[in-house]
Amino acid sequence: MKDMVSMGLRHERGKLFVLDQQKLPHQELWLECKSPQEMVDLIHRLAVRGAPLIGVAAALELARYYERGATKAAVREAAGMLRVARPTAVNLMAAVDRMLAALAADELVKMAETIFDEDVALCEDMACHGELLIKDGDRILTHCNTGGLATVGIGTALGVIRRAFENGKRIHVYVDETRPLLQGARLTAWELTKLGIPFTLISDNMAGMLMAQKKIDIAFVGSDRIAANGDAANKIGTYSVAVLAHYHHVPFYVVAPYTTVDKSCATGADIPIEERNSDEIRGEAAPRGCAVYNPAFDVTPRKLITALVLNTGLA
Amino acid sequence: MKDMVSMGLRHERGKLFVLDQQKLPHQELWLECKSPQEMVDLIHRLAVRGAPLIGVAAALELARYYERGATKAAVREAAGMLRVARPTAVNLMAAVDRMLAALAADELVKMAETIFDEDVALCEDMACHGELLIKDGDRILTHCNTGGLATVGIGTALGVIRRAFENGKRIHVYVDETRPLLQGARLTAWELTKLGIPFTLISDNMAGMLMAQKKIDIAFVGSDRIAANGDAANKIGTYSVAVLAHYHHVPFYVVAPYTTVDKSCATGADIPIEERNSDEIRGEAAPRGCAVYNPAFDVTPRKLITALVLNTGLA
Repeated sequence: MKDMVSMGLRHERGKLFVLDQQKLPHQELWLECKSPQEMVDLIHRLAVRGAPLIGVAAALELARYYERGATKAAVREAAGMLRVARPTAVNLMAAVDRMLAALAADELVKMAETIFDEDVALCEDMACHGELLIKDGDRILTHCNTGGLATVGIGTALGVIRRAFENGKRIHVYVDETRPLLQGARLTAWELTKLGIPFTLISDNMAGMLMAQKKIDIAFVGSDRIAANGDAANKIGTYSVAVLAHYHHVPFYVVAPYTTVDKSCATGADIPIEERNSDEIRGEAAPRGCAVYNPAFDVTPRKLITALVLNTGLA
Repeated sequence: MKDMVSMGLRHERGKLFVLDQQKLPHQELWLECKSPQEMVDLIHRLAVRGAPLIGVAAALELARYYERGATKAAVREAAGMLRVARPTAVNLMAAVDRMLAALAADELVKMAETIFDEDVALCEDMACHGELLIKDGDRILTHCNTGGLATVGIGTALGVIRRAFENGKRIHVYVDETRPLLQGARLTAWELTKLGIPFTLISDNMAGMLMAQKKIDIAFVGSDRIAANGDAANKIGTYSVAVLAHYHHVPFYVVAPYTTVDKSCATGADIPIEERNSDEIRGEAAPRGCAVYNPAFDVTPRKLITALVLNTGLA
């Protein structure tokens, strides 16, 4: 398999490395992934996260595993395990299914390379379409992390924002910290700092006040799965942002590649929502053992989305 | 001055103690307050917080200071310092002004006792009116902490909820963790655990999803200052809850005593909003030095409030 390098994933001379996203922003630690089980663990603990990225990472690990001599049966078993590592993001299932089809035709390595290169190109296409929606001077709200760490290209929603900045538009980004795991505070803030894009970090519960003060002109978020009717699952809190944007007449866009669209889900109600460990909410603050609800995602109905920004254009 | 005891404040044999609310729920540490300057510091770092409580605490400290031999001039100076310790909560200013008027008439101790006893009674009155709004089986959303730790009685919004529970209504409370300082996760969860009231802790950005799933029947919050037109300032995030409640047709009530109403503010736009230290948002997660916006309060316009629950009844 050829060498491939992105912000959070590297395949170099037959070895696969991931940037541990749980250690960012204070430590840039690259971990070598030596087995499909290790990749499953990395995905479970969100060392590797972002719907497009986990799809690509799973594909590269299956190809690496095969190149290292795993039998087709072993690759098939590993694929089954990886396919269910995160239930909501459909990109993972789509990538694994493509790899299984390629395995039959003995084109596993080629398919992994295709999936990687395609993800880079899809980001460019989304950025190209979405960038046109941003005006000079816009103050942009975003939620979670949807950039170079969530894909192997420039990102989905954050890719759109980055392209607007690179095209000379004077923008300011308001970054939701994104509880409970703080992907906004840790990852988006880190990416924007690296890119030199001006931003302000807020807690999730401040977005409404900012909109009331007319300090938000437009909102962009990513998605983990889009149903056939356009309902979009994304990081918990996205739905609240969408309702607030609707109430304040702020345009609200969901940016995602076609690999995020799942035609087999008729509506958002058909998208499985992962519930995660209670300690993510309790942390050090809450009484030990108190009851917690911790869905990792919510679903925004299509009617609250101004438009989907897909790699093929607005929809 | 007589002995007075509440969940978070004690005056016993001439000494004044506060429960350090920054140490809860894992440690119940009582600190002796030995000077007005110490009380200012306790208020600044939120060891003492809750709009009604800080008013009572300031009054008791001024009376204690006077009883210990401070001159009227020294009490006046201390009052000026305490009066501005938190800019948004008007209860503090109202209590200090009443103490200054009593100082002139040499009735400082009597006024401090009156303010304490009155706050207990006001909570009972609010609970009495508000409790009628809760139906058996209701699932109730609340934000921040508004209970026995925020007042010297049973609380404002949380007092209403407590009274409904004590009256035998089977309720369930959803507690917003309330970023950045987690008063919901730390304090409301602690109080509800002590009271045996069933609750579930959520991150602030989950309230919208719960409402979409029809899991919230009614919402109660407190207030730090209510303008003449009924606009209400409260802990950051309250406005977002109000918009979400409005969109989902969930009744949204603000519970506060008359000491929270400030007729000198015509509308919410006249209420000063305290901005706090950026590190409260950044914590350990975000890149060091990144830009942050950290308003401690937001303002909910009267039109989004189903009714104000005052000690005098619904308004």
